[in-house]
Amino acid sequence: MSNVEQLRKQVDEQALTVRQLKSSKADKEQVTEQVALLLGLKEKLRIAGGDNSNSSSGTPAAATPKASGGNSEAGKSTGFTLKTAKGTKDYTAKEMAVRKEIFATLTEVFENHGAVTIDTPVFELKEILMGKYGEDSKLIYDLKDQGGEECSLRYDLTVPFARHVAMNGITNIKRYQIAKVYRRDQPAMTKGRMREFYQCDYDIAGAYDAMIPDAECVRVTVEVLTRVDVGPFVVKINHRKILDAIFDVAGVPEEKVRMISSAVDKLDKLPWADVRREMVEDKGLDGAVADRIGEYVQLRGGAELLDKLEAMPELMASEKAREGVQDMRLFFRYAAIFNVVDYVSLDMSLARGLDYYTGIIYEAVLVEENVRPTQAQPTATGAKEVKEGGDIDESQVRVGSIAAGGRYDKLVGMFSASRRTKGKGKATDVPCVGISFGIERIFSVVYSRMQSAEVKANRTKVYVISLRDGLLEERLRIATELWDCGIATEFAYKVKPRFQNQLNTCDSEVIPWAVLIGSEEVEQGLVKLKSMAKDVSAEEKSGVAVKREDMVAELKKRLGIVQ
Amino acid sequence: MSNVEQLRKQVDEQALTVRQLKSSKADKEQVTEQVALLLGLKEKLRIAGGDNSNSSSGTPAAATPKASGGNSEAGKSTGFTLKTAKGTKDYTAKEMAVRKEIFATLTEVFENHGAVTIDTPVFELKEILMGKYGEDSKLIYDLKDQGGEECSLRYDLTVPFARHVAMNGITNIKRYQIAKVYRRDQPAMTKGRMREFYQCDYDIAGAYDAMIPDAECVRVTVEVLTRVDVGPFVVKINHRKILDAIFDVAGVPEEKVRMISSAVDKLDKLPWADVRREMVEDKGLDGAVADRIGEYVQLRGGAELLDKLEAMPELMASEKAREGVQDMRLFFRYAAIFNVVDYVSLDMSLARGLDYYTGIIYEAVLVEENVRPTQAQPTATGAKEVKEGGDIDESQVRVGSIAAGGRYDKLVGMFSASRRTKGKGKATDVPCVGISFGIERIFSVVYSRMQSAEVKANRTKVYVISLRDGLLEERLRIATELWDCGIATEFAYKVKPRFQNQLNTCDSEVIPWAVLIGSEEVEQGLVKLKSMAKDVSAEEKSGVAVKREDMVAELKKRLGIVQ
Repeated sequence: MSNVEQLRKQVDEQALTVRQLKSSKADKEQVTEQVALLLGLKEKLRIAGGDNSNSSSGTPAAATPKASGGNSEAGKSTGFTLKTAKGTKDYTAKEMAVRKEIFATLTEVFENHGAVTIDTPVFELKEILMGKYGEDSKLIYDLKDQGGEECSLRYDLTVPFARHVAMNGITNIKRYQIAKVYRRDQPAMTKGRMREFYQCDYDIAGAYDAMIPDAECVRVTVEVLTRVDVGPFVVKINHRKILDAIFDVAGVPEEKVRMISSAVDKLDKLPWADVRREMVEDKGLDGAVADRIGEYVQLRGGAELLDKLEAMPELMASEKAREGVQDMRLFFRYAAIFNVVDYVSLDMSLARGLDYYTGIIYEAVLVEENVRPTQAQPTATGAKEVKEGGDIDESQVRVGSIAAGGRYDKLVGMFSASRRTKGKGKATDVPCVGISFGIERIFSVVYSRMQSAEVKANRTKVYVISLRDGLLEERLRIATELWDCGIATEFAYKVKPRFQNQLNTCDSEVIPWAVLIGSEEVEQGLVKLKSMAKDVSAEEKSGVAVKREDMVAELKKRLGIVQ
Repeated sequence: MSNVEQLRKQVDEQALTVRQLKSSKADKEQVTEQVALLLGLKEKLRIAGGDNSNSSSGTPAAATPKASGGNSEAGKSTGFTLKTAKGTKDYTAKEMAVRKEIFATLTEVFENHGAVTIDTPVFELKEILMGKYGEDSKLIYDLKDQGGEECSLRYDLTVPFARHVAMNGITNIKRYQIAKVYRRDQPAMTKGRMREFYQCDYDIAGAYDAMIPDAECVRVTVEVLTRVDVGPFVVKINHRKILDAIFDVAGVPEEKVRMISSAVDKLDKLPWADVRREMVEDKGLDGAVADRIGEYVQLRGGAELLDKLEAMPELMASEKAREGVQDMRLFFRYAAIFNVVDYVSLDMSLARGLDYYTGIIYEAVLVEENVRPTQAQPTATGAKEVKEGGDIDESQVRVGSIAAGGRYDKLVGMFSASRRTKGKGKATDVPCVGISFGIERIFSVVYSRMQSAEVKANRTKVYVISLRDGLLEERLRIATELWDCGIATEFAYKVKPRFQNQLNTCDSEVIPWAVLIGSEEVEQGLVKLKSMAKDVSAEEKSGVAVKREDMVAELKKRLGIVQ
């Protein structure tokens, strides 16, 4: 691992330490000390040229001072800055080994539920993405006009999926997709917020009976998060129709529903008083209306909360509310059979930003990091002061959110032609429900728990070593034979490598077995099989002599490969 | 599979038929007939809205006539064309199932040779890519300037890899990467030429003894191409130093070496007379110089060709030539030990376009499609007429090339800072050698050989079916139990699905086993296990009754899952 990689890992680990201290409300002095350590590491990383995403200045690279005379150790090159673009990063071999494992786990769960995968292009026609993301549309990356179509990098996997379904006239499909998406957001590496990042989506499209696929999505969420072992989590759920009914009953004017909805969504990180002030002062909502909203959106609980809602005549006067509650009753029934009801919390403040949701919405959050200020202690000063108080700071915004999704029944229809054919408006709607995993967040939780030394990046099983005299051609012959048998094998690319260097490579690459040869062994038709593990017999440590023709069989036996 | 997908597959298959007929020099009438069929299918696909990459007109989408009144069945939407961007396409579930298999095979071979994988961003700072691709730089996609850095989509995986190695001060790494790259080329779907496509690269970076990693790259190439079963192929090899010496000895002026080199590279698809004319008439080379080049570059053969080269005193006067020949001697020795020498052909006309190669270069080509006009029959008219003659047409250009690469010892150094530090110029060069697989071409060869029905897109093993009465909750319970045991399970998302519909799904999705339940079975604590295969006993076809508590064990037994 290079110096920069090591530093980057140290920064990530230290950032996590700081975050954990803060959320465990540790001693203030201790926090300050650890923050100082973090800042020092960040500075070292910056000097080493490896920090390319943590600047919040938005300064274009061209304005960065350049190395004069090429004296800087690394990170600068002949006339330009050697770095990845802002908000993007390379993943090292060790990081990739862990990421591949996580992707494999997700894939296995998705496929166990019958999902297939499709692939869509990284860029779409710009008009496909327009009007789907509300205010966030400004974060879409466009391609330069080089003559031809106007294109943009995909912002998520949901809209391209809906486009694919509509374009091919598909009426039902259960698909997963693990792929990169792009957002021109202000990057912040320590928060895991990048401009290029993976999304892992699982969606069920098709006209089915109520809440069956919806409940399966939550089951998939629980299976994935349990399997990747991300720590304790809860799946908050709500229903768009109930939320709409609340705004309706409380008397929110039609044109303010969106902004009020997004204010409500902040209740997971701000006390009600702050959210109320945002509604009234910033968004001009009538105070009485805000208070009526407050009565509803601070409610949370299990299935029993549905009884409470049903006992509210004002709310139940709304057909939408009745439909929503009925859906949620079904959901809880199916979720109980799927054994996931214990993970679920009905939370009336969950609103989700995107416009296209039409039914159930959900969001999985890590429990220990989901620090929520006590509702009973509203402050009069708002977000900034809360931050200074140490409880909530910007770096914790949504940090606990690791999966989110919901039902979107109208998105495919937005793309379908026949929507305009009179009288058949609904024929091309393909109802969808899905979940998107915050895989970068999951990765950073899992990876930061590991010791770097634990991670084996390669899969090499055998290293062919000459004791002396090089014996290159004999080493090549042995490697060839092992490759032919599917045994992952390496050797030093030197005519006469030093014995100790070969052993060191074997050690540092965590290769479990070495095949040792010297001129003597070659003459006698032998090889020695040496285990690189620590807890083995003295004989295996120094090397067990076996006949050359038995080498493959003996290695397979030791590697546990079924013959 | 949707109508559009089916049509697209038919077009691809028909295009292959036509290509095969042409290369087998079939009866002209037969070819004409099949071409007409192909054009008809393409037109059908175009009407269905699925053809989004085959237009060579370069017309932007905005200029495409729009559906008026929304009468067209599919492919048009409310006010805009519903398609993927030019030169890009979606991959369906069946295509992805096959692609995933191919990727897995490549990954296995790469990892068997000890390679690790890294990930780099889809876009790089524009200046990183500048000056690396010669004339092809015009094909680079730029991102729009939205305030910030100037970025471009990656053109290949080699330059980002070199940037990664330089940036992190890595001195040795063996890495593979399977990822998308972008080129604003004129797309042609039937030729497999897209604007977004995957590359699969395997590279060895580090200062090692001559030709050992180089020979291993060719070994990896042969392993991959044999394992994916792409058909007979040959790996053409040449050496940049020998080629440079030839141009030197023949008397090519320094400033013309590049263009003459690219003319020579066309010898795999044009007769010498045409290449000579290009050199002399288009590129202003002296006729006598061209003739001297011709003596060398038409040579090809095995290791014995090296004897022939060594017997040419004029060539051997060049130190570069001597070095190149010496390298190639070593290469043939190692390739023989690696058991790949029979696949290798030394071909003095192989030049490869890219500027950064410094040593061995190679290219794997499919044998049956590598149609080369007879060298003894030069025509006086050139490429266009040859095309009309039917032997060579543009669609066959490079069509046989399925992997290519070589040694590039200076690329990392181009990125390294210390190059400018006086006296240490060479310290930051990291010599590299690698191979890039034309995975899209390999995929299209493998996929077009398959019958669509053969491909199972999902991995579902069990479908839970109710005989009557719906029994939704019991079906959910059974699915939950099977998921808990890692058995891929689906069921109909309906409260009361029809029995026949459930069976049909099971059939069309090629799900091997059904669990049947009716009220009677539930009461008696039984389930029936029904095999969906054709060649099974009458009992298994109608369903074997087993106890509910034995269901998992019985299914595992039948699915061959070790307990």
